[in-house]
Amino acid sequence: MKVRAQGITIGKLPTGSKNCITDIKGIKVGHFTIDTALNEEGSEYACTGVTAILPHGGNLFKEKVTAASYVINGFGKTTGLVQINELGLLESPIMLTNTFAVPTVTHATLQYMLEQNAEIGESTGTINIVVGECNDSYLNSIRRFSVQSEHAVEAIKNASNNIVEEGSVGAGKGMVCFGYKGGIGSSSRVIQSNDISYKIGCLVLSNFGKKEEFQSGKYNIQFKDNGNVALSETSDGSIIIVLATDAPLSERQLLRISKRCGIGLGRTGSHFSNGSGDIVIAFSTAHRTPHDYIDNIEFRNQLRDDHPVMNEMFSAASETTEEAILNSMSQAETTKGRNSRVVHQYPF
Amino acid sequence: MKVRAQGITIGKLPTGSKNCITDIKGIKVGHFTIDTALNEEGSEYACTGVTAILPHGGNLFKEKVTAASYVINGFGKTTGLVQINELGLLESPIMLTNTFAVPTVTHATLQYMLEQNAEIGESTGTINIVVGECNDSYLNSIRRFSVQSEHAVEAIKNASNNIVEEGSVGAGKGMVCFGYKGGIGSSSRVIQSNDISYKIGCLVLSNFGKKEEFQSGKYNIQFKDNGNVALSETSDGSIIIVLATDAPLSERQLLRISKRCGIGLGRTGSHFSNGSGDIVIAFSTAHRTPHDYIDNIEFRNQLRDDHPVMNEMFSAASETTEEAILNSMSQAETTKGRNSRVVHQYPF
Amino acid sequence: MKVRAQGITIGKLPTGSKNCITDIKGIKVGHFTIDTALNEEGSEYACTGVTAILPHGGNLFKEKVTAASYVINGFGKTTGLVQINELGLLESPIMLTNTFAVPTVTHATLQYMLEQNAEIGESTGTINIVVGECNDSYLNSIRRFSVQSEHAVEAIKNASNNIVEEGSVGAGKGMVCFGYKGGIGSSSRVIQSNDISYKIGCLVLSNFGKKEEFQSGKYNIQFKDNGNVALSETSDGSIIIVLATDAPLSERQLLRISKRCGIGLGRTGSHFSNGSGDIVIAFSTAHRTPHDYIDNIEFRNQLRDDHPVMNEMFSAASETTEEAILNSMSQAETTKGRNSRVVHQYPF
Amino acid sequence: MKVRAQGITIGKLPTGSKNCITDIKGIKVGHFTIDTALNEEGSEYACTGVTAILPHGGNLFKEKVTAASYVINGFGKTTGLVQINELGLLESPIMLTNTFAVPTVTHATLQYMLEQNAEIGESTGTINIVVGECNDSYLNSIRRFSVQSEHAVEAIKNASNNIVEEGSVGAGKGMVCFGYKGGIGSSSRVIQSNDISYKIGCLVLSNFGKKEEFQSGKYNIQFKDNGNVALSETSDGSIIIVLATDAPLSERQLLRISKRCGIGLGRTGSHFSNGSGDIVIAFSTAHRTPHDYIDNIEFRNQLRDDHPVMNEMFSAASETTEEAILNSMSQAETTKGRNSRVVHQYPF
Repeated sequence: MKVRAQGITIGKLPTGSKNCITDIKGIKVGHFTIDTALNEEGSEYACTGVTAILPHGGNLFKEKVTAASYVINGFGKTTGLVQINELGLLESPIMLTNTFAVPTVTHATLQYMLEQNAEIGESTGTINIVVGECNDSYLNSIRRFSVQSEHAVEAIKNASNNIVEEGSVGAGKGMVCFGYKGGIGSSSRVIQSNDISYKIGCLVLSNFGKKEEFQSGKYNIQFKDNGNVALSETSDGSIIIVLATDAPLSERQLLRISKRCGIGLGRTGSHFSNGSGDIVIAFSTAHRTPHDYIDNIEFRNQLRDDHPVMNEMFSAASETTEEAILNSMSQAETTKGRNSRVVHQYPF
Repeated sequence: MKVRAQGITIGKLPTGSKNCITDIKGIKVGHFTIDTALNEEGSEYACTGVTAILPHGGNLFKEKVTAASYVINGFGKTTGLVQINELGLLESPIMLTNTFAVPTVTHATLQYMLEQNAEIGESTGTINIVVGECNDSYLNSIRRFSVQSEHAVEAIKNASNNIVEEGSVGAGKGMVCFGYKGGIGSSSRVIQSNDISYKIGCLVLSNFGKKEEFQSGKYNIQFKDNGNVALSETSDGSIIIVLATDAPLSERQLLRISKRCGIGLGRTGSHFSNGSGDIVIAFSTAHRTPHDYIDNIEFRNQLRDDHPVMNEMFSAASETTEEAILNSMSQAETTKGRNSRVVHQYPF
Repeated sequence: MKVRAQGITIGKLPTGSKNCITDIKGIKVGHFTIDTALNEEGSEYACTGVTAILPHGGNLFKEKVTAASYVINGFGKTTGLVQINELGLLESPIMLTNTFAVPTVTHATLQYMLEQNAEIGESTGTINIVVGECNDSYLNSIRRFSVQSEHAVEAIKNASNNIVEEGSVGAGKGMVCFGYKGGIGSSSRVIQSNDISYKIGCLVLSNFGKKEEFQSGKYNIQFKDNGNVALSETSDGSIIIVLATDAPLSERQLLRISKRCGIGLGRTGSHFSNGSGDIVIAFSTAHRTPHDYIDNIEFRNQLRDDHPVMNEMFSAASETTEEAILNSMSQAETTKGRNSRVVHQYPF
Repeated sequence: MKVRAQGITIGKLPTGSKNCITDIKGIKVGHFTIDTALNEEGSEYACTGVTAILPHGGNLFKEKVTAASYVINGFGKTTGLVQINELGLLESPIMLTNTFAVPTVTHATLQYMLEQNAEIGESTGTINIVVGECNDSYLNSIRRFSVQSEHAVEAIKNASNNIVEEGSVGAGKGMVCFGYKGGIGSSSRVIQSNDISYKIGCLVLSNFGKKEEFQSGKYNIQFKDNGNVALSETSDGSIIIVLATDAPLSERQLLRISKRCGIGLGRTGSHFSNGSGDIVIAFSTAHRTPHDYIDNIEFRNQLRDDHPVMNEMFSAASETTEEAILNSMSQAETTKGRNSRVVHQYPF
């Protein structure tokens, strides 16, 4: 269950109908989950996966979206940010997986995009693939490289605009958050002002925090007394935050909004630990930049920075990040992994 | 009264003995406060001031300290950050004042430093003066430029290592926070681990937030019912955060810690509004870099990034920022300014 | 004489009709020059000034232009960059002066803008003043603070769209470049492609370089044998580069173009010395953002990054920077300053 | 032949004995070159490779070196920069290859490092692999993914401290520079001052520039009239610049030096084209940070920023970059690739 169904409300803005990043028209999310013993005794276990976020259902290379990235803390191996920062454009799905699977998933996504675009590397330039990661090695035998190319392609093909499956699914399969089970979570907000109505959606891959850091006390609900206990020791972990909106924002404005995700992350209890790869990738679906152009000039709409809606967007970035993290925990089931390790669901 | 005396405890780390930035040996803070009607009817009113933070009591140009700056949101007029970012050094007091007084305070501090250092601009290069600001124009007739050069010098001369005077004092005189009176606040933490003991101190100039953003509910105390009401409308405001430590940190590490101040700011309720100049300036007193050198090589100690103490420093940056903001409010008295405007003390 | 009149041609692109930043419609440049002995023997001498660049002749606060800044090397005291970086807007003249005059010129420009805009600090927020600087203390008694508020205002009032006066004028009065006299220089380029015609203009305040670094050999002309000698010892110096265009560029694109100014600077011989404040401020006049808005959404044209014209803009940024530096030297007359010091004109 | 043997001298500083990055003690460079027809008619051709730069011959994960990265222009797919920027450390070989081979080479290098370090992903965290790239698709059938994991491992195993093999070798096999054959080039400088003697070495993978941009005229030699012609049309290309030194520099200082590589790049004729991934990765071998620590505090030496040697380092970064680019061209033999395409050696 999402935490909102359990009485936890984050912030003041209304959610979208699905309370998911897929509330934004056109965005698709897909997972491929791996859950297999790698030896008989199960000491080696594949507990991992891949998640794909598609900004729209078309050819992303041919119709790019405006994007920005923000590194909250950079102890991470996310790839593809250099070009986003230079050009302000996203031209591939955003893929999430475990740390050591980044090369495989990058390669698979590259091949997938090449198949769709015969001219890349032939008559036109290259393509920038974006892959985020967290380290799931507590549960997953990460050195065994269980994620294969076809798994990444499956995640893309599984993508739909439906309610996002959350918790121990896709890239979230093996993740741990505040000593409990984490993984994929999502949330959304609707911002309305006179004739304006925009949506912001967030999807996180949560894998951070020590149990004593979690600010459970500020969520005014009674947690269950079901015997689920946290891991006593967890490493610094990471979080990947994907933020999306249909508001007409420039890459500079998307960067501004991305920085506010750190507020929501901080409000759950995180201090952006030394060993964390805490990274935000944000995009707007409002404008598509064609790869092949007819006109020299792009015509772009852009929300004014001083429009009151901008401050609400800032709030929405924080609110959806915080709520998506909580959802990643409340939706994640107790999971077994390598060395007979178990990570419990938070007693929501 | 500081909020801790009222039962509000932020975080888990112990405070220093003064719970002030001056818990760090050698740091001095001084204020000069201006509170004068500028015409008979009081419609024009000088309600402003200057605050000086001295990293040590010596000649700061001759013995520079390691420093970093971080712009949380850059709608601000703070000066001096370019050189800090390039060289990782601070060579002047950090001065705080109102937005329009930045040039006057910069000039005065420059002159003050020139008097101490006859060789600047003569036989050696120039000096970088650092001045932060918030906009106090709700209470202060900011267009009247009430801050004079001598006021800045007075703030420096008033500096001491005592408990920091907080609230509506110095640069904090005219500031507004969450619709109530804000201004100067401070807090500190002590981090201990085996043979290591470090301190982190924070001083803020708070001037941000709408009343409905303040997360008063999370502070488990009974606020007074004394009729003090918030301003119904406030502009986006700003906050300057000065962070200091005696831990041996590089400028890169100070930058990392600076970024965590945003967590504490976010936890009070801020979303880093569009119109905010939310800026962190951090320094370490552990190492002094002489202006005139004998040796070509500096020998520096540096805490390892993966030492557990580093994560505690991250927490401390957040905790002290949050508590300093609350102190700036609890210590600030109800204040009258221009146009008969009144900003009330928060009903702590 | 400009160097082009002496047979030195930089790059391949054609210049504008004036070969000045004022080739871009609406841009105005004005100087105020100070040249006064401060004592009888002349050991103290005011050899300095102020230069103002106005992106357009209207009210800059009410009609802001798109802008970016880039710090090539940050040993400098330029003020106003924080807000440009956050919002991508310039709302004041760009003022140039000596290092210690930055506060005075900031204050004067602030007052000038306040007089034009009664609502600033009253019913609307504050204003961001941008002032760049170089250290002219070899010739100028910089500790004497000779620049007064009225000098800054005079520079603004002197501004015109005419051919820019270059050399030892305005802020350039006391500057030294490669051991010879430097100061103000300007250049421009015209970029044409089918139906597109854009201009790029550059204005520099040059004050950097040792004589042996100057790449005079690459300029295929015979320099004069007029006995003019370079200073044997010069400090690291600085350069402020103002880049302007009428092409419809976003702030991200202006930043990209700004980075190419370093190429032109490097081609003259600079290695961006440790003690240099080498700073670029760029703006586009193509779009004006009103301070007071009717519409929530701005409609903006934006040149595609992959349009061939963009690469020509990159070349133009380098070419105009290099040529503006040469013009600052060729136009600068031999100048006397404090302590009977003389800096000669380069023997062009 | 290196260009210096042909009478072209860049700058004033003396070279190291090999005039290579391997002049710095301990640095090793290895190549693996692929040169195979992929079909009978040769229309599909593998003309590519891998180059490995090892900062020292030990276990790089266990003994990390200080590092920095700088993005001159970010149209590129280099991976591993996020963590370098956060921590200032390099813990893997720097691998160079073609754009589409980045995932394969990352994966292979990761596996190689895992084999050396059984604890990674088991009892300690993850490892950050750094791979730079250029697009060699003019000569190489890049869509055919000819680089295999074992090729990356071979490049590492081939690494030695000898004179670096330059030109059409390793990752340089298929690269094009100014319309002529480019690829791997290297150069070094020795900086001496009293009792100080430091080396700076540079290795480039050159793949940028249009023939008309090359500043051949400034190199005062007679080029051969051997009929070698440039490609008439080349895409924007890229360059990866690896800079190394044995001077005791912090990551901030390495970043400063990295920025000066752009000067040397610009002096060859580049304008950092829109489609370029122009990226610098710099490291110092002077200090090794152990992964497993005994002491909480690192003791570090650091050259003063204002030591005259620092400005010489800035020059050296520019000089070695420029000379390494020229060497990459002069050492590169005429090369055939896919679709019977030929790229000629520059007529040095």
